[in-house]
Amino acid sequence: MPAPASPRSEASRHAILRAAVAAFSEQGPAGARMDAIARAAGVNKALLHYYFGTKEGLHQAVLDAIFGPVRDHALALLQGPGSAGERLLAYFLTHFDRLALGDTARLMTYEMMRAREGQPSNLPRLARILFTPVHQAMVRVFREGLDAGELRPGDPDQVFKALTGINVFYFISAPAYREIDGADPRDAAQVARQRGHMLGVAATLLFADPRGGDAAVRTLLERFPRSILPAQGTRP
Amino acid sequence: MPAPASPRSEASRHAILRAAVAAFSEQGPAGARMDAIARAAGVNKALLHYYFGTKEGLHQAVLDAIFGPVRDHALALLQGPGSAGERLLAYFLTHFDRLALGDTARLMTYEMMRAREGQPSNLPRLARILFTPVHQAMVRVFREGLDAGELRPGDPDQVFKALTGINVFYFISAPAYREIDGADPRDAAQVARQRGHMLGVAATLLFADPRGGDAAVRTLLERFPRSILPAQGTRP
Repeated sequence: MPAPASPRSEASRHAILRAAVAAFSEQGPAGARMDAIARAAGVNKALLHYYFGTKEGLHQAVLDAIFGPVRDHALALLQGPGSAGERLLAYFLTHFDRLALGDTARLMTYEMMRAREGQPSNLPRLARILFTPVHQAMVRVFREGLDAGELRPGDPDQVFKALTGINVFYFISAPAYREIDGADPRDAAQVARQRGHMLGVAATLLFADPRGGDAAVRTLLERFPRSILPAQGTRP
Repeated sequence: MPAPASPRSEASRHAILRAAVAAFSEQGPAGARMDAIARAAGVNKALLHYYFGTKEGLHQAVLDAIFGPVRDHALALLQGPGSAGERLLAYFLTHFDRLALGDTARLMTYEMMRAREGQPSNLPRLARILFTPVHQAMVRVFREGLDAGELRPGDPDQVFKALTGINVFYFISAPAYREIDGADPRDAAQVARQRGHMLGVAATLLFADPRGGDAAVRTLLERFPRSILPAQGTRP
């Protein structure tokens, strides 16, 4: 069992985690190597095993360190101030801004690829630490908005999946759209344009009254003209 | 240059192409092997090179053979009978049904993955034979529907990308959603449900008058309750 945390051991643990996040993000779970991570963190490999056990233990610590704060930020927006519709729009904005920043997308993509290829993945862990709590909070907010007459009656699962899909596809399809129209969807101006457009689509699908949706989109874009993410990002 | 087509040489060519479609779909462009394709087609490898040149030539012939008919079917729907809004809904239904069938998705995914990893891909070829002609036809239909007052004013590129994203994400995210709610999005009943829901979202985003959109969705689902694809599929 790890010794009680001292400032020194906390610093080592943090350095290992930071090196591991880079390794797992860049090389994927198959490519990341324990000795290279220890070297990058400036610790010996025994200490790395002492803190995190196996490579799979370290991989899980990386996912917790990255996606725990993603969940906390999403829940804070969903449980924060504003009407139900405004909070759901804020959620889809943080989802978009996170994908645009790109700091978590590769870790997620590796898990999705492993699952699609029938390999063991950490999707059950991601469901537990991220997907499920956020989804449950979103459904509660949706019901609240229905009761208040603010939102359009509909199946929340399907609307949420549609809006999540619009965000994810925008970024993963960038190479194809670059071929179609010559403009790179990842350019800052294109991303800014899509950010407003996505919110417009979300408002159309979520709000009972189009004027209420338009007003909520305008307010949100004025408050967060560039990004709704916490300034420090999510890296440990 | 290949000899003028005789019934016999056409049959060989067809057998090679059929074996190559299977190999490139299942093993990807890196894994597909010319000698295995020749063996599966029951021809010698020299004939394969005689008809298709290099492996890259065969790969391109595979993409043309698969995505040419996909384009032709999409253009037939877009230029066929019905109002502009009805034809656009029919297009998104063929896109959905094609992804559900899964016969083309892997070939497309390999090209997208190669492009995202910065490797040379056939996306420029796919843009030329599929994306660009279909996109241009869709934009023309959209303008027609605007002029007729049937469609909601908006940027067609962004609406089309949103609806394409909803379809693609539904299928690629299936492993993650299976973890969240236990139901497999690829089960027939779930696919049928999503098919109707996607058309509802498409109608909401496309039509100026919700009643016009609802009526068009109902008509389309009555005409094509299971699939809008040609019965023979797209395989050569």
